[in-house]
Amino acid sequence: MDEDLAFDVFAKSCPSRSTLEHVTGRWGGLTLGALLDGSLRFNELRRRVDGVSEKMLSQTLQALERDGLVHREAQPTNPPRVDYELTPMGREIAERLLGLIRLVEGRMDEVLQARTRYEAARGSL
Amino acid sequence: MDEDLAFDVFAKSCPSRSTLEHVTGRWGGLTLGALLDGSLRFNELRRRVDGVSEKMLSQTLQALERDGLVHREAQPTNPPRVDYELTPMGREIAERLLGLIRLVEGRMDEVLQARTRYEAARGSL
Repeated sequence: MDEDLAFDVFAKSCPSRSTLEHVTGRWGGLTLGALLDGSLRFNELRRRVDGVSEKMLSQTLQALERDGLVHREAQPTNPPRVDYELTPMGREIAERLLGLIRLVEGRMDEVLQARTRYEAARGSL
Repeated sequence: MDEDLAFDVFAKSCPSRSTLEHVTGRWGGLTLGALLDGSLRFNELRRRVDGVSEKMLSQTLQALERDGLVHREAQPTNPPRVDYELTPMGREIAERLLGLIRLVEGRMDEVLQARTRYEAARGSL
């Protein structure tokens, strides 16, 4: 990518597209949102992100750590204790994402009405 | 879902989770973002959302229409002309999403530096 060009998520080859996917992917978004409340251990995160498998959470955390959004802190205890927390950049992005999540949650009555109308229109064809 | 309970995207069975996925999914997000500039025909959308297949764009638009975020307007011309545009609710959500997209794009230098550090640390193990 030409250094003079801004990053553009609409362009297929722009690296921002993969980061946006890590942030807004099914588990990435919920993981970032859960970490807004503070640092969590792996199993605490797994309980908070209802439905995620161990493997998917592990992959999700790895992608977010690689992008510099999540910091992984291993304590030298026995057994080792590993905490995950947002970096400052991760927090900024997670806060913006949570705003979107709260907006969607707040409009769900309207969404469900739209679904009912949509299904009814299909049914009458 | 109990009507007294607020919608909660962190709960596996909450319908808000599927709407959030339609909004933030790979193609859903880019489709909403593209429609912020105004109504577009299918093939115009396909060009704007670089890399999307006809089938995926079609499925994406259907999910967004069902959720009441996108309005599909078929003109009675020959050949029929179909335009897609955001509903007021779709616009509100798309604007919030675009704020997130612009934030991620603006932090990509930092993200790419983090990726380099991450790979270097893995390489030295």
